[in-house]
Amino acid sequence: MSIEEKLNQMGLQIPENPGVAGSYVPGVKTGRLVFLSGAIPKSPDGSLISGKIGKELTVQEGQKAAIAATLNLLSNLKTVIGDLNKIERVVKVNGMINSTPEFEEHPEILNGCSDLLVELFGEKGQHARSAIGVSSLPFNVPIEIEMVVEVN
Amino acid sequence: MSIEEKLNQMGLQIPENPGVAGSYVPGVKTGRLVFLSGAIPKSPDGSLISGKIGKELTVQEGQKAAIAATLNLLSNLKTVIGDLNKIERVVKVNGMINSTPEFEEHPEILNGCSDLLVELFGEKGQHARSAIGVSSLPFNVPIEIEMVVEVN
Amino acid sequence: MSIEEKLNQMGLQIPENPGVAGSYVPGVKTGRLVFLSGAIPKSPDGSLISGKIGKELTVQEGQKAAIAATLNLLSNLKTVIGDLNKIERVVKVNGMINSTPEFEEHPEILNGCSDLLVELFGEKGQHARSAIGVSSLPFNVPIEIEMVVEVN
Repeated sequence: MSIEEKLNQMGLQIPENPGVAGSYVPGVKTGRLVFLSGAIPKSPDGSLISGKIGKELTVQEGQKAAIAATLNLLSNLKTVIGDLNKIERVVKVNGMINSTPEFEEHPEILNGCSDLLVELFGEKGQHARSAIGVSSLPFNVPIEIEMVVEVN
Repeated sequence: MSIEEKLNQMGLQIPENPGVAGSYVPGVKTGRLVFLSGAIPKSPDGSLISGKIGKELTVQEGQKAAIAATLNLLSNLKTVIGDLNKIERVVKVNGMINSTPEFEEHPEILNGCSDLLVELFGEKGQHARSAIGVSSLPFNVPIEIEMVVEVN
Repeated sequence: MSIEEKLNQMGLQIPENPGVAGSYVPGVKTGRLVFLSGAIPKSPDGSLISGKIGKELTVQEGQKAAIAATLNLLSNLKTVIGDLNKIERVVKVNGMINSTPEFEEHPEILNGCSDLLVELFGEKGQHARSAIGVSSLPFNVPIEIEMVVEVN
């Protein structure tokens, strides 16, 4: 079963490519690594999830935003490598969470992304990760996620 | 025409090496990749652009700071690889913007860096990018930018 | 003298593995590079140093937290590669400091990490670095540090 079929069985799908928000590209392949641009929770209809975690949005809403951003990351990755089955390993995930200074539950939110990657790619989806709280993000989205992936 | 000649034609030049602000080096080459330290908008005379975007500085002033930081990144890269014509691809740019919690226009500021890289390196300058808003930066500079570059 | 013997001579030791705070792994090896997850100042007894720099904690306390996080990074690296003597080069260090919007002394805090790496690994410990101030971190820890390392 292909990665995209597996995703569909989970009730999800790769969104149309979300594009980028400036003078850059969705990702760059160098050797066997792909460095992906930060992706945000933009919906396929072009609408954005926005708001700060701990202020306008809850942890649960943040997790949904993390999943939406992850699907956009996979869409960006597909434009770079053509086929998600070429993924050999998700190497590193960085999650930047737009949150209040008092917020402490970054790991719970990022697990929305990490759990999806592991469910989808199995052992190849097990990744290193950093989670930080940032004071602001483009368009006031609640989360931005970037990845480094090894492909074959 | 060399990269530095092209830069001069654009009315810009590689500044004298800005040095670093602690116990580290400007960049490290590993295989064909160079990981560069975060660079800040330090002028050749040693003065710094400082202030938060959205508070003391405008978006336009932020773009100028992004260009100054990018020139310092290129200066640091030159100390590591000797010659900017060895650049095969700008792989990844991370822009950290010292801004107020309400700020949303990070992409506009980072385009100051990205547009310069594409104008200078053409297709080789097309990079993946992340842009985030941070609550503080060393010496209260408005922006810090780091890059990963592939060289030959 | 092995790296761990050297560390012991400095009065320090590799802590028991601190584990991770979510659905991810301590680090991933790809080619000759290891990307490590963000590590925090968790003590061997499981207690955490917490508080914001510039509010509850001083620069000196931040430096101690940076050293504790660095020891956890090395512990995580050991679980990935088995033996710290395999380190060929510390490539990149990213330090994310939980601090007030007015804080400016990020380099001093990160030097706690950088000085330790250089003392321990000599020339192989000389790394590129970025230091930023973030508005919040998991469990309100004062610092999170991640690394990219080249191994043989």
